[in-house]
Amino acid sequence: MFKPKSVKAGTAYDTAETLAAAAKTGTEQKLTFVLIHGAWADASFWDKTAAELRKAGHTVYAPEYAGHGDQYDPKVTHEQITKSVVDFITGKNLKDIVLVGHSFGGTVIQKVSEQIPDRIKRLVFFNAFVSLDGQSLVDQTPPEVQDLFQQLKDASGNNTLTMPFPLFRDTIVNTASLDLAKRIYESAKPEPAEPLFEKLDLKKFYSLNIPKSYLYLTSDTALPQGPYGWHPAQSSHLGLFRLITGEGDHMTTAYTEPKMLAEKIVAAGRD
Amino acid sequence: MFKPKSVKAGTAYDTAETLAAAAKTGTEQKLTFVLIHGAWADASFWDKTAAELRKAGHTVYAPEYAGHGDQYDPKVTHEQITKSVVDFITGKNLKDIVLVGHSFGGTVIQKVSEQIPDRIKRLVFFNAFVSLDGQSLVDQTPPEVQDLFQQLKDASGNNTLTMPFPLFRDTIVNTASLDLAKRIYESAKPEPAEPLFEKLDLKKFYSLNIPKSYLYLTSDTALPQGPYGWHPAQSSHLGLFRLITGEGDHMTTAYTEPKMLAEKIVAAGRD
Amino acid sequence: MFKPKSVKAGTAYDTAETLAAAAKTGTEQKLTFVLIHGAWADASFWDKTAAELRKAGHTVYAPEYAGHGDQYDPKVTHEQITKSVVDFITGKNLKDIVLVGHSFGGTVIQKVSEQIPDRIKRLVFFNAFVSLDGQSLVDQTPPEVQDLFQQLKDASGNNTLTMPFPLFRDTIVNTASLDLAKRIYESAKPEPAEPLFEKLDLKKFYSLNIPKSYLYLTSDTALPQGPYGWHPAQSSHLGLFRLITGEGDHMTTAYTEPKMLAEKIVAAGRD
Repeated sequence: MFKPKSVKAGTAYDTAETLAAAAKTGTEQKLTFVLIHGAWADASFWDKTAAELRKAGHTVYAPEYAGHGDQYDPKVTHEQITKSVVDFITGKNLKDIVLVGHSFGGTVIQKVSEQIPDRIKRLVFFNAFVSLDGQSLVDQTPPEVQDLFQQLKDASGNNTLTMPFPLFRDTIVNTASLDLAKRIYESAKPEPAEPLFEKLDLKKFYSLNIPKSYLYLTSDTALPQGPYGWHPAQSSHLGLFRLITGEGDHMTTAYTEPKMLAEKIVAAGRD
Repeated sequence: MFKPKSVKAGTAYDTAETLAAAAKTGTEQKLTFVLIHGAWADASFWDKTAAELRKAGHTVYAPEYAGHGDQYDPKVTHEQITKSVVDFITGKNLKDIVLVGHSFGGTVIQKVSEQIPDRIKRLVFFNAFVSLDGQSLVDQTPPEVQDLFQQLKDASGNNTLTMPFPLFRDTIVNTASLDLAKRIYESAKPEPAEPLFEKLDLKKFYSLNIPKSYLYLTSDTALPQGPYGWHPAQSSHLGLFRLITGEGDHMTTAYTEPKMLAEKIVAAGRD
Repeated sequence: MFKPKSVKAGTAYDTAETLAAAAKTGTEQKLTFVLIHGAWADASFWDKTAAELRKAGHTVYAPEYAGHGDQYDPKVTHEQITKSVVDFITGKNLKDIVLVGHSFGGTVIQKVSEQIPDRIKRLVFFNAFVSLDGQSLVDQTPPEVQDLFQQLKDASGNNTLTMPFPLFRDTIVNTASLDLAKRIYESAKPEPAEPLFEKLDLKKFYSLNIPKSYLYLTSDTALPQGPYGWHPAQSSHLGLFRLITGEGDHMTTAYTEPKMLAEKIVAAGRD
């Protein structure tokens, strides 16, 4: 576009032929992904998807972060989680990474990108929260969800959140079989509440020029439909971003359609 | 989640493997469906879908209700329709049913559930109206549709509604071939108007704790796009619900993609 | 519906059988399409799609219009563009056409339909602008896009618009490979700005009774998500219309999925 070619009558078809050929060539860029899971999950959330990405030739890291998985700690803070991801990336001296955050992981990659912006070539928010400056994850949810989370926290006795199964089944794994829904639910530990309630200083995040994508699976009602939904409500916080969409819900798709999910993550993450 | 397992380093992958295996097992629950059709239709609307559900091992009833099909009566009331469905279910002593309502049928299953809540394990609203307490179906539509329905009623001479074909073709069967569009249109009788205009007392419905799903075919513009649409406008009246989505319009899909529709109804109806 | 058949118990199933048979018959109407491309494109945009439409037996014209392609002229006006399309259609004495406009082409088919309404059997807006009376294309975009377009125009020195590649890549060809994205971008010439900024008198358009369809590819973020989006924001300007949806973005799909796009155009364009 910046260098318009001279155009002669009769050559328009050649252009389309060339474009069509390009559409078919499989010379896909190889990327380095760092995948950050969400709440009520651990790094094993990514296992099937990471395997598919590796099959396609990409390099994939899905680090466990502070307070989760084998480092489970109900008292973990958002800052500790961020630090553990930053330490992982700098410890391995990873560069030019595509940093992917799912759900709560969106707020993690927001804070990580503030600390090591030069190592990140693109941020991918996958049905993820994008907190506004000075707000928490919980602030991104409608009043009734804020009330629910407060009640779950108060009832826990140890500042964690455990969703009742019927709520989890119908809003987080709505497309799953009952059997799979139960297994995903049972694999989740009570989520440390504090990182979801902490107000985050995101001034630097909103000053960064890192390219961003939003991957939106359209049957996801973990955030209620309407003005508080993933897209366009959360996604629009990003300003300019690349939208990639697919069919799926909040958690099931990573278990039932990892190949599709991997392809969508590549479409969101590539240059 | 309520019984967190002890977690050791190195076992995370086992969890994902187990989940993936679960995703593949076909031990699908067998359900008993009662399917309630909408306006400008009769029970034959469900024929192909019911056949697919039965093929998959489910038990299916698609009763004709008062004033429609072979019981056609322009003077039928919403109460008579509700009673005919309640009588069908109690007459056969059906229990643990998944009660599915399409379009106008949404308001029918709302009223039926008030009378026999203990027989219903889940309500599925399929591109269906979910009237608010004290409101009619027509109250759920935008002003221009309310005007249109009033005009059609006034013009009918016998308190029925007949949609002009061009309107029906472009908003109810928009994805159909012209041939199929005409056949669906011609199979419809003038719809008794009163049940669509009656204000419904739904206080009890909104106090019930029956689990609910909303099945949303995304090319359906029988309700105009925007603030009056099926999802999230009508669906959000349900409060908490399980969302299942698919591609299709208001009526065509039951004729052209009954297998897909049956699978979506199972995904919406299972525990 | 206007001629209700006599209905007997036991015949309902026959109706459904007949309908199902109709759904399978391939007696598709043969149509005459005139395809009008959008900005940052020329008539070769349609090459693959036109080939698929022709394969299916339809007659297709994709005329280059004033100021674009081999007639490139940065000073072209909206009126000259409209006239060139009208002259093409009248010059070939085309009748009963399905007139399809993509993107900016939506405003072109609005004005063309005012001049030769009797030659058009249906208008199809394909992720297209539908300007309101007295408004320009730019008036249909949110404030930040209006500012951007003004800046691009001012910076051009010759009253044209050239999008920076990163913006084009993430919002116009978001689903494309980088290679294809670059090729589509490089094939575009600086877009003459005036036709996008001209206020259009559309009083006659909004008085016409030509049937209309809106074809909406759902991953298209050339218009930002939310209140300014293609559907339902632009589409709702049409009043009554037939909605057809598919998966794709603003420009890529014509190169990567021309068969699907052709089928959607037929579904939008047929009677």
